[in-house]
Amino acid sequence: MEYKFGACLPTFASCADRYCLSGYGGGGTTIEEMMGLAATVPDLSGIELVGNWHINDDNIEKVIKLTGEHRLSICMVTVDLWTQAKWGKGSLAAKDPVTRKAAVKEIKKAMDWAASAGCPNIDVWFGQDGYDYHLQADYVKSWEWLVEGLKEAADHRDDVRLLVEYKMKEPRTHCFVSTVGKAILLIEEVGKKNVKVLLDSGHASSALENPAESVALLNGRKEKYLAYVHLNDNFHQWDDDMLVGSVHLPELVEMLFWLKKTGYSGWLTLDIFPYREDGVGAATESISWVKAVLEKIDAIGIKKIEQVLSANDGVESVRFLREFFLGER
Amino acid sequence: MEYKFGACLPTFASCADRYCLSGYGGGGTTIEEMMGLAATVPDLSGIELVGNWHINDDNIEKVIKLTGEHRLSICMVTVDLWTQAKWGKGSLAAKDPVTRKAAVKEIKKAMDWAASAGCPNIDVWFGQDGYDYHLQADYVKSWEWLVEGLKEAADHRDDVRLLVEYKMKEPRTHCFVSTVGKAILLIEEVGKKNVKVLLDSGHASSALENPAESVALLNGRKEKYLAYVHLNDNFHQWDDDMLVGSVHLPELVEMLFWLKKTGYSGWLTLDIFPYREDGVGAATESISWVKAVLEKIDAIGIKKIEQVLSANDGVESVRFLREFFLGER
Amino acid sequence: MEYKFGACLPTFASCADRYCLSGYGGGGTTIEEMMGLAATVPDLSGIELVGNWHINDDNIEKVIKLTGEHRLSICMVTVDLWTQAKWGKGSLAAKDPVTRKAAVKEIKKAMDWAASAGCPNIDVWFGQDGYDYHLQADYVKSWEWLVEGLKEAADHRDDVRLLVEYKMKEPRTHCFVSTVGKAILLIEEVGKKNVKVLLDSGHASSALENPAESVALLNGRKEKYLAYVHLNDNFHQWDDDMLVGSVHLPELVEMLFWLKKTGYSGWLTLDIFPYREDGVGAATESISWVKAVLEKIDAIGIKKIEQVLSANDGVESVRFLREFFLGER
Amino acid sequence: MEYKFGACLPTFASCADRYCLSGYGGGGTTIEEMMGLAATVPDLSGIELVGNWHINDDNIEKVIKLTGEHRLSICMVTVDLWTQAKWGKGSLAAKDPVTRKAAVKEIKKAMDWAASAGCPNIDVWFGQDGYDYHLQADYVKSWEWLVEGLKEAADHRDDVRLLVEYKMKEPRTHCFVSTVGKAILLIEEVGKKNVKVLLDSGHASSALENPAESVALLNGRKEKYLAYVHLNDNFHQWDDDMLVGSVHLPELVEMLFWLKKTGYSGWLTLDIFPYREDGVGAATESISWVKAVLEKIDAIGIKKIEQVLSANDGVESVRFLREFFLGER
Repeated sequence: MEYKFGACLPTFASCADRYCLSGYGGGGTTIEEMMGLAATVPDLSGIELVGNWHINDDNIEKVIKLTGEHRLSICMVTVDLWTQAKWGKGSLAAKDPVTRKAAVKEIKKAMDWAASAGCPNIDVWFGQDGYDYHLQADYVKSWEWLVEGLKEAADHRDDVRLLVEYKMKEPRTHCFVSTVGKAILLIEEVGKKNVKVLLDSGHASSALENPAESVALLNGRKEKYLAYVHLNDNFHQWDDDMLVGSVHLPELVEMLFWLKKTGYSGWLTLDIFPYREDGVGAATESISWVKAVLEKIDAIGIKKIEQVLSANDGVESVRFLREFFLGER
Repeated sequence: MEYKFGACLPTFASCADRYCLSGYGGGGTTIEEMMGLAATVPDLSGIELVGNWHINDDNIEKVIKLTGEHRLSICMVTVDLWTQAKWGKGSLAAKDPVTRKAAVKEIKKAMDWAASAGCPNIDVWFGQDGYDYHLQADYVKSWEWLVEGLKEAADHRDDVRLLVEYKMKEPRTHCFVSTVGKAILLIEEVGKKNVKVLLDSGHASSALENPAESVALLNGRKEKYLAYVHLNDNFHQWDDDMLVGSVHLPELVEMLFWLKKTGYSGWLTLDIFPYREDGVGAATESISWVKAVLEKIDAIGIKKIEQVLSANDGVESVRFLREFFLGER
Repeated sequence: MEYKFGACLPTFASCADRYCLSGYGGGGTTIEEMMGLAATVPDLSGIELVGNWHINDDNIEKVIKLTGEHRLSICMVTVDLWTQAKWGKGSLAAKDPVTRKAAVKEIKKAMDWAASAGCPNIDVWFGQDGYDYHLQADYVKSWEWLVEGLKEAADHRDDVRLLVEYKMKEPRTHCFVSTVGKAILLIEEVGKKNVKVLLDSGHASSALENPAESVALLNGRKEKYLAYVHLNDNFHQWDDDMLVGSVHLPELVEMLFWLKKTGYSGWLTLDIFPYREDGVGAATESISWVKAVLEKIDAIGIKKIEQVLSANDGVESVRFLREFFLGER
Repeated sequence: MEYKFGACLPTFASCADRYCLSGYGGGGTTIEEMMGLAATVPDLSGIELVGNWHINDDNIEKVIKLTGEHRLSICMVTVDLWTQAKWGKGSLAAKDPVTRKAAVKEIKKAMDWAASAGCPNIDVWFGQDGYDYHLQADYVKSWEWLVEGLKEAADHRDDVRLLVEYKMKEPRTHCFVSTVGKAILLIEEVGKKNVKVLLDSGHASSALENPAESVALLNGRKEKYLAYVHLNDNFHQWDDDMLVGSVHLPELVEMLFWLKKTGYSGWLTLDIFPYREDGVGAATESISWVKAVLEKIDAIGIKKIEQVLSANDGVESVRFLREFFLGER
């Protein structure tokens, strides 16, 4: 299997929303408990940690040791640019220069933690960088600040990659880096070798993208920008962070096919929010779905599926899907 | 099999949109050709005809004969309340009383044609009854006109049923009878035994309804209002009228399950627009999808699926779907 | 002025979301502080309190006194059916009968508190009653449970009204009572005089309803069901709970016009979430917007606007809006 | 006034949709009639013509003369890559190389017509280049074909600009060049000086973009790509092509502000579909809206509005909008 499966650590905690701030219950409360639960998920080998929250100067040794004991690796350190009120009006693109400086510093810290933990990946999701109201933001300056901040952070060290994760909305009504096209534009303007893109399938689809097509744009042109993948599902209106395999099945098949076709290898990490579900069950089932689809794709073969594409005919495509999911008749 | 499969006749014609008004080609041009193509689709036994366009005073004898020769039945006559400029600002709820009167008359004509053809169903889709702009319509009067018109038409004869087909938008930016809730309200206010609801799965889903839940509301309460079903698929943003099985598979499984569970029997009719596809292939493939899902539901059994519902647990639901589509592992 | 302006108390607290659970800061932390802030908003005369959270057996005397001291009235008590993990899988329509019983009891408690406080309104927003996944819920039973629970609660006392607030999604991906049509169906099935509908403009518009049309359906037919109004704005994709006047201006004008035209009087209450804004400023500005539009409507006159509707012409409607907002030219 | 107002010629014809293929009536049927109607719209000075349909080898002399007689100029020639069945499965990115070649040829013809007519702008809207179904298209090859075709066409002559018009969907369920980000990526890859971007405000907003932000991205960075603007409005779900000023007013103010702020000058062309409205009235009213907003922006001054942005506070933004639309209070 050319892919490794990861999960965000909060999968194994109690997930909250704005109505039930204490969380819907279940899951662990300490990092030890969460990690212990993660370790019980078959085929799971990596875990994503959020800076400050899960990993910090005080606990880093302990966390590295703990991860090793559970035969897990840290596949990603996510910079904390969104869990505190101070980032509320932006981080890298905040109007306040002190905040922008603090954001860059936070990225650098995360890079150092990641390097210490042998993890080459930083998730730079600047979800608070955006706006809520019309006539509230200077789009040109904001974009320049994003570019500047990423450049400076990228220069901090070249053994860790900064992965820009785009998302259309939430927590702002409009996030600046909202689509695959803008994500590519941004990193091309940044122009650093260690700045790449993280594709979250649910962010893509709730931006009305077909994730497979976004994979092709990121990974099928001369420059390959796709460095990491988040998986989840939703109803295409919002980032519901549901289990993989719950809503959009042809979309999933097509996306996994294009990951293979364009030579993506590496992490397939669950970014799900099992608010009312058992975290271990939710992760296990999601991975089972992905594995089952990947195995079926392998059994059929890339060539055969390319022929379906090549027919360029909706009837052929739907027939292929029926045979894929319900067998030949 | 407790269901019969139908199709709208234009499936077998050249489908047009506002850009390519002459149609994307393929299909038949005469009713004879379209019917001939329909007759080649396995398991298809019914055909929907649009009043004036396909069936009218001049050709009704010929059309009935033609249908019989092809071993098809006319499962529905659709009233022409939308193909001509005169309906542009509404039919049953037009501000102009002359137009409203003409609309009622048109329904009565369609009822007579249907009765002559042994067809008990009239599709009353008043798609032009709505509005495009804010402050353009009197919602209260419009609703009253809809009720009045339907009452009068329903009284014309009781051997034919008027089936209200709801849709959120298109051709207007807002259609008056837009959701399952409003459709039920409307027919309850009309209060005639021969006025029921037609559920178009794609209209439901592009109104952000989960079609299965709409089936339950229509057919699972004391009064059963569901009298007919249109099937197709879309991307939940618009009434794309795509092949069944192309986008939303769990949605399809759940809807067909609820049709069975609530005791719906009768027509499952394709309302697809194969703009760039072969009509016969598109219809054949869509029916194959529906049959394959129905057979699998039967093999599993309603009881077993009710247990999944009863678990009330997302993980169980997604696991069931995986086993349904990819087998036990 | 025939309307009174209210606000939900959390407008004056620190608003949180799933990323920044401690809230974006600003606002008060105690009920005294929040009430004190509310009292500084010009034209604000009512305040909504959430049961348990703001008002409960222990503090009710104090809260009533406090409200009076600030020359505010309690315009609504909202039942707590959503802030605790125990409601996560539903309240009135939970599968677990113990939870359903507890939900009814909670409504009764809220009714008693409201009666003690001289408040005739209970907001029954059962936002957790819904589902997230396909094949996770029994829609028929759930609906019956909602009807049963509301009936029992309504019988508790007839001097307080239960106001059903519909919403399409959030916190579930699908809430059962999602649209204006379903809300009316529900209360008609409940059939109690003291069960009415609360229209939240943002819930309507994020369900793709035009709020003006929903007002007409609720308040323009024989039976008048509209008993209370929540105001806010959003981008029609999600319940963003933004300031009134921020995004959809013609929608606002049309809705306020229809409230007047159908004879609604009573509360216009802000249900806004000023995550990153000053609560007092946000409430003040929202009320200023509503007042300015209402005054302009009064200056023009209902008759004149009815003529615009009567023209049934998009050009006339858009011209009217231009003159409304930018003056005659 | 730094802007010139244009309109697409079909504004003055009978607009059709897939239900009423003969059009909803009104408007002219010949180019003479349409042009005559256009000439009566105050402030309208330019007209867009579609190749083959309105302008071709046979009538070009006549059309140029006619335009002059009406004191109009041809502000744009739109290539016909979408009105005929032969483009149904794509034009520049069609799988069939013969079709791709024909598409390039069609662009070159349009360039020659434009040059003859003294028009420097070609609208390259390859709306049929996309896909409807999952697993129907090779996204990598399609993108390469787009790049190749545009390169070849651009080299045909450098006195005419090719303006790429992006759109998310319709007529395909997914168009390849769907967002502002992808449009910029595409023309950067093409790398020709005479290939720029056309921003259609309704295409942007129905792709969930805020058009003002898209203007900033296109025209506020080092390389300026914005060369032409289409104006219309919609409900953000579909390209409704409604009158300007009908739905999203703050969006309109912000967009026009950003056009000014980033130094855009040139055409503001209406791309509206007045299906059921009088075309002359619809165009007149739309231009009146734009002029009224522009004049108010000028009266207030760019500096003052920049201060609102600079406050970076939703309350300030909404207060500004209230004063803009309803005056100081």
